[in-house]
Amino acid sequence: MDFAPSPRAADLTERTRAFIRDVVEPVEGEYLRDLAEQRRTGDPWRPLPVIEELKAEARARGLWNLWLPKEHAGEYAARFGTDGGEGLTNVDYAPIAEATGGSHLAPLVMNCNAPDTGNMEVLLRYGTDEQKAQWLEPLLAGEIRSAFTMTEPDVASSDATNMAATAVVHGDEVVVNGRKWWSTGVGHPDCRIAVFMGLRDTPENLEADPGIDRHHRHTMVLVPLDSPGVKIERLLPTMGMYDEPIGHGEVSFTDVRVPVGNILSGPGEAFAIAQGRLGPGRIHHCMRLIGLAEMALERACRRGLDRVAFGKPLANLGGNRERIADARIAIEQARLLVLHAAWKLDVGGPLNALSEVSQIKVAVPRMALEVIDFAMQIHGGGGLSDDHPLAGAWTNARALRLADGPDEVHQGVVARLELGKYGAKR
Amino acid sequence: MDFAPSPRAADLTERTRAFIRDVVEPVEGEYLRDLAEQRRTGDPWRPLPVIEELKAEARARGLWNLWLPKEHAGEYAARFGTDGGEGLTNVDYAPIAEATGGSHLAPLVMNCNAPDTGNMEVLLRYGTDEQKAQWLEPLLAGEIRSAFTMTEPDVASSDATNMAATAVVHGDEVVVNGRKWWSTGVGHPDCRIAVFMGLRDTPENLEADPGIDRHHRHTMVLVPLDSPGVKIERLLPTMGMYDEPIGHGEVSFTDVRVPVGNILSGPGEAFAIAQGRLGPGRIHHCMRLIGLAEMALERACRRGLDRVAFGKPLANLGGNRERIADARIAIEQARLLVLHAAWKLDVGGPLNALSEVSQIKVAVPRMALEVIDFAMQIHGGGGLSDDHPLAGAWTNARALRLADGPDEVHQGVVARLELGKYGAKR
Amino acid sequence: MDFAPSPRAADLTERTRAFIRDVVEPVEGEYLRDLAEQRRTGDPWRPLPVIEELKAEARARGLWNLWLPKEHAGEYAARFGTDGGEGLTNVDYAPIAEATGGSHLAPLVMNCNAPDTGNMEVLLRYGTDEQKAQWLEPLLAGEIRSAFTMTEPDVASSDATNMAATAVVHGDEVVVNGRKWWSTGVGHPDCRIAVFMGLRDTPENLEADPGIDRHHRHTMVLVPLDSPGVKIERLLPTMGMYDEPIGHGEVSFTDVRVPVGNILSGPGEAFAIAQGRLGPGRIHHCMRLIGLAEMALERACRRGLDRVAFGKPLANLGGNRERIADARIAIEQARLLVLHAAWKLDVGGPLNALSEVSQIKVAVPRMALEVIDFAMQIHGGGGLSDDHPLAGAWTNARALRLADGPDEVHQGVVARLELGKYGAKR
Amino acid sequence: MDFAPSPRAADLTERTRAFIRDVVEPVEGEYLRDLAEQRRTGDPWRPLPVIEELKAEARARGLWNLWLPKEHAGEYAARFGTDGGEGLTNVDYAPIAEATGGSHLAPLVMNCNAPDTGNMEVLLRYGTDEQKAQWLEPLLAGEIRSAFTMTEPDVASSDATNMAATAVVHGDEVVVNGRKWWSTGVGHPDCRIAVFMGLRDTPENLEADPGIDRHHRHTMVLVPLDSPGVKIERLLPTMGMYDEPIGHGEVSFTDVRVPVGNILSGPGEAFAIAQGRLGPGRIHHCMRLIGLAEMALERACRRGLDRVAFGKPLANLGGNRERIADARIAIEQARLLVLHAAWKLDVGGPLNALSEVSQIKVAVPRMALEVIDFAMQIHGGGGLSDDHPLAGAWTNARALRLADGPDEVHQGVVARLELGKYGAKR
Repeated sequence: MDFAPSPRAADLTERTRAFIRDVVEPVEGEYLRDLAEQRRTGDPWRPLPVIEELKAEARARGLWNLWLPKEHAGEYAARFGTDGGEGLTNVDYAPIAEATGGSHLAPLVMNCNAPDTGNMEVLLRYGTDEQKAQWLEPLLAGEIRSAFTMTEPDVASSDATNMAATAVVHGDEVVVNGRKWWSTGVGHPDCRIAVFMGLRDTPENLEADPGIDRHHRHTMVLVPLDSPGVKIERLLPTMGMYDEPIGHGEVSFTDVRVPVGNILSGPGEAFAIAQGRLGPGRIHHCMRLIGLAEMALERACRRGLDRVAFGKPLANLGGNRERIADARIAIEQARLLVLHAAWKLDVGGPLNALSEVSQIKVAVPRMALEVIDFAMQIHGGGGLSDDHPLAGAWTNARALRLADGPDEVHQGVVARLELGKYGAKR
Repeated sequence: MDFAPSPRAADLTERTRAFIRDVVEPVEGEYLRDLAEQRRTGDPWRPLPVIEELKAEARARGLWNLWLPKEHAGEYAARFGTDGGEGLTNVDYAPIAEATGGSHLAPLVMNCNAPDTGNMEVLLRYGTDEQKAQWLEPLLAGEIRSAFTMTEPDVASSDATNMAATAVVHGDEVVVNGRKWWSTGVGHPDCRIAVFMGLRDTPENLEADPGIDRHHRHTMVLVPLDSPGVKIERLLPTMGMYDEPIGHGEVSFTDVRVPVGNILSGPGEAFAIAQGRLGPGRIHHCMRLIGLAEMALERACRRGLDRVAFGKPLANLGGNRERIADARIAIEQARLLVLHAAWKLDVGGPLNALSEVSQIKVAVPRMALEVIDFAMQIHGGGGLSDDHPLAGAWTNARALRLADGPDEVHQGVVARLELGKYGAKR
Repeated sequence: MDFAPSPRAADLTERTRAFIRDVVEPVEGEYLRDLAEQRRTGDPWRPLPVIEELKAEARARGLWNLWLPKEHAGEYAARFGTDGGEGLTNVDYAPIAEATGGSHLAPLVMNCNAPDTGNMEVLLRYGTDEQKAQWLEPLLAGEIRSAFTMTEPDVASSDATNMAATAVVHGDEVVVNGRKWWSTGVGHPDCRIAVFMGLRDTPENLEADPGIDRHHRHTMVLVPLDSPGVKIERLLPTMGMYDEPIGHGEVSFTDVRVPVGNILSGPGEAFAIAQGRLGPGRIHHCMRLIGLAEMALERACRRGLDRVAFGKPLANLGGNRERIADARIAIEQARLLVLHAAWKLDVGGPLNALSEVSQIKVAVPRMALEVIDFAMQIHGGGGLSDDHPLAGAWTNARALRLADGPDEVHQGVVARLELGKYGAKR
Repeated sequence: MDFAPSPRAADLTERTRAFIRDVVEPVEGEYLRDLAEQRRTGDPWRPLPVIEELKAEARARGLWNLWLPKEHAGEYAARFGTDGGEGLTNVDYAPIAEATGGSHLAPLVMNCNAPDTGNMEVLLRYGTDEQKAQWLEPLLAGEIRSAFTMTEPDVASSDATNMAATAVVHGDEVVVNGRKWWSTGVGHPDCRIAVFMGLRDTPENLEADPGIDRHHRHTMVLVPLDSPGVKIERLLPTMGMYDEPIGHGEVSFTDVRVPVGNILSGPGEAFAIAQGRLGPGRIHHCMRLIGLAEMALERACRRGLDRVAFGKPLANLGGNRERIADARIAIEQARLLVLHAAWKLDVGGPLNALSEVSQIKVAVPRMALEVIDFAMQIHGGGGLSDDHPLAGAWTNARALRLADGPDEVHQGVVARLELGKYGAKR
């Protein structure tokens, strides 16, 4: 159980921190103000030019595509990526993800943000050479962006068997129909491709075919966003925030036709792909949340020492020190739990870390919400405004109690595996 | 300890519910969509016409200015207001406030929304005849709106003695300087007047004058918003939401001069006024939050019965029923606590209800946050969007953990009074 | 919704407080020391003589059997009981129960303790004249004590249909078999009679008889403890405490034969009786817990002001004042909730207060545990010892999360009724 | 950050588990019943013979004194102890401590129980050759036991500067006076020696001597329990439990005279010794609590699968699976946090792990209480009795929120170090 990053990863972490401290943070305040201004007066979905400048700088510093997994990166690590020519383990990447998590722009400008990393990983693992050439390479180069379309507005998507969208092979085409939402990334003008998940046939036909078990009923297919029949119906706010220029959209697919060559892995393989995709993705999300919580705690401490009320720094009033201590304890525990899950994933793959990945998915957003909420409270009214990055951080963490499966589903997984030790079938 | 409303109040409550159910709710969805559209394409601060229509209907139904307090309403109840010609007690008004709380528009269109009710109450109790004629009457008529400017961005305003703004008498004028924020209401184009609170003299002069104790150092003064030197610097988002067309602003006051006749009660009387102003205001806020929590619980139950996952209605999965039960219990306890505070206020005035008013200020937002958060969670991703009024409700409740004094200050009041029973001086 | 006690009840509450303050509390410390000594050196189940002295004094002061319910007390109120000749409503009795709850001995010496009150109420409502003469009168006189035997060790008794014990009529006898535990009261040497609940026939016969629905399968019968076949197997500790001289026992019943005249109400009527028995009993338990929590908070405050660490009274360290405030808020809310349930019971009977009684059963022990745990903590190690009545209070409150139905069952009732508002069948 | 135990430690852990599973657990139930019987009928402080048998077996299996620390064990490891001839690191010992924690007898019979381990460590590190020969060797041999006397009944001992007991050198003697309580171990008939902590001089003299800073005012001295003037006043219950045959006592010291050679390290050195003593001790306590929580969770799962109510295993009712998941998550986090603290201690000593040791002291008992309380609840009434080891486990965990410093003091340490990062002096 060794959670220490390799020397190379430790060096990359340090360099990531330096990049964020020296390059990103100094422009982040102005970026956010410009974005707010653009919201009032222009098109908030037009990425501000500073983003491309920061991307160039990240690439120049060798801090580009650091998420590339050791196991699957292959030649792409050297061509597009991580300094040193090979990918990183989950344990190695974890502190880097944490370092980026406290910054609004860092994940994006280092080409390390969701959902693109997950989509690129899918292409790395399951893509054909053609798929890789057409979509993976420009994604790795940061030239285009992608979306992941799975959740649907009309059903409880926590139960994947509720899914109603279809991706049915007709001859050499796949016909795609359905309505998806919370499709992260579709707001960005560079977003060109969606990984779409749907039933391989109509529900009636599937019911009638006992040969297809419920884990082989779904297909993943690459759908270019400019395909006829694809319509971004609207962009959705999360607690009032749109997360421009990435955004989360509601997208309809009406008789969209793409070549069968766009199918990932094969018809009915979506579950297997999703399983593999989500493990590392959840590690990344959780480590970024830990970075966010660290940012919030640092701000809470600084505010607590700077502001004075009733003759004392706020930190010395009432239970504030206890809350600071509890925040520190909660962050440490959460980080160790994520490192543990990362290590389990590294040493034994997703099936070895089923409970652990669900554990962090439950524990880390909860922890982050608690810490950030305290930081908001100690900042007074300002903590709820956009003068501080706390309200945005809270919203981010809150969304992760639902994204990639609600808490309750992950608690169910953990409980099932726990009870399984004593003979429970499920 | 009788919490039953009078028959007249029970009738008004019923009529309020009917008005909301039959008139307000049917247009609220469209209102919110139009407002969202206006945000994207126009000026979100321009009130939509339906508001005036609803105001007229509320007035026609005798559901106008129901907040008017029995004790202080005097002739104004008959002239502007509550059906029946006199004001209501806090216990009587409480269920009406609750009924309005679940609706986005009801408080506004019934002329029962903060901060106007608090400002009108101050004018009722402390206003001169001139002040009443000039400001109170158009406010009661719903022709203009008002703001309350107390909190400051540069200090911990939870400690009122930190206040730095000044309202100094020079001859027959008051010179007003300072910067305020979270000035609710300044976004509305009809907002004409601010109740401003500031030091009666420079901090240095006050320090040098031992004759003025710290509870007589502040003055409240009426400042028309079109006075030279008043500038609305910006409107502030709360968790990403601007609460149009009311809004919360940051306002600077630079050498603003108003007649001494605009002072409320007298120089140095601000604390006494604030004390009286805040008791009923907190009752109103808390009862509206209870209405909000009831709305959230109803939606959670309906969603829990309608949506199906893993073969069952969501309500029957995992701990959802326990959470529904806990929400019901929490709401009941919160309502009873507010009624108790209202009753204490009615029978003995603000000094009789110091602890009770602080108790509800701590307990009710906490409860509402818990209930609404559960409702968001059971709605899945949609719960965080603006498809449901839950994210807005959460934000509203969260802000009330800070507005009118943060939790920690109110806990301090409750603890001081508790320890005082055993001889603690403070 | 009027929670004010009648003037007579208010007077009885005052007199109860005076009795406890002037008579009971002065001897309670020595009583507990003597009991501890008797535990080490003698028979802890022998009631100490002071109990009879206090009973006599309570009776002399007219503070005897105050629990007698207005609705059912009839002639017995005048003959055995409450000063003034009639019983009290639940709202009237609530503050008296609270006053007794903070004292170890008061409920016992005022003949107001569980399970005797519940058993006496059953006899009042369902007893024949013979049953009343034989058992109710000596119980009301405080000459004998009683037990209630329902829970069984070998099944999950939270589901009453799991019950395995039987009480089968054979000719003019009832044959009683089974094993019960948590039979409160059986430790007392004066305990003479058990209210026993069992299946009216063997499970097989009941299964075979579709005419008997599951709410008419159980019978309640009076079983004298000296009947052949009744054996107190052992007395059970609760968190290490035996609660002498009352005690909670495991009792086996082997072919015990009692006359059919001992059946209460009739064969198969146990559910109906239990329903009525438990409503008021839960009010009493909960109000006593509130008294216990008030006692704990008072001790926490006094300790917080008296003890000094790091140069300050403990109350002024860290979050202690916040915890004191939260305790005050929690107690107020809990008391109001119980009064609300009592009022609902008074105005509409048990069916009118199903949710409310379950609400308090969940909320009040939780609250009490929180408050008492804080009081233990602020007392340091001593708080866990028997130098203070806190460890005993905690244990008492903890047991009430299970006694009379675990939290989870009561949450289920509240949720069922809540969801029923929206059409859920169950 | 490597938390993996050495191969030798992993082997010892396995052998410990086998010893407990095969030897200790099979006799534990009977042991507890015999102890309960002895409580009723004899002297509960007389250790039952099985303890010596188990000690012999533990020694024979090389599972004796495994706590001996690598750094300080020296020759004693080979002579008295850990299989292999040298001590273990904290990381190595952690899983062994966890394995023993779920068993009532294992720590005692493996000579690994508090307070003896802490006292032996003090002797190892600070003892003279004479002190070691006289006290350390028989302790290591398991022939005698020891106590640690620090906390005092009359002051808030959370602030060590409140201590009033004295240990003053007069010529070649130390005169010891004072009253201590929660002196763990004094109940055991083999307890021969107390490590006593007291002021090196009268408070007045110390006040008058500015040369002695507040961290050099206390002395630790070895006081044989048979010294004239030592009196065990009483044994204290914790939540009703006496923890026989170890026990926690109140002990008075009246003009007790011991040779100066009994001073540990030197006059005024007590703080330095205590600092070193408590780090590993807290690791041990916390790891044992994790073992206790694992035991409770296993029992909760088994019970949840075995018992049926409302037609389902309890585990499938309501929120029970969520609670099982949360328990698993909480245990994992707690274990990782303790391993982290152990690792920090191993790589940098106590000063390197100040915050981490305080973190676990706060987090682990909280976690254990939550898990055990759930296990009690799912066991119904039996969970509170002594039919299951849960009530004892809860009490054990509750005591550790106070023993070795209350939560609040440790939260203070964590917060001080956290705020120190941003310049706070203290």
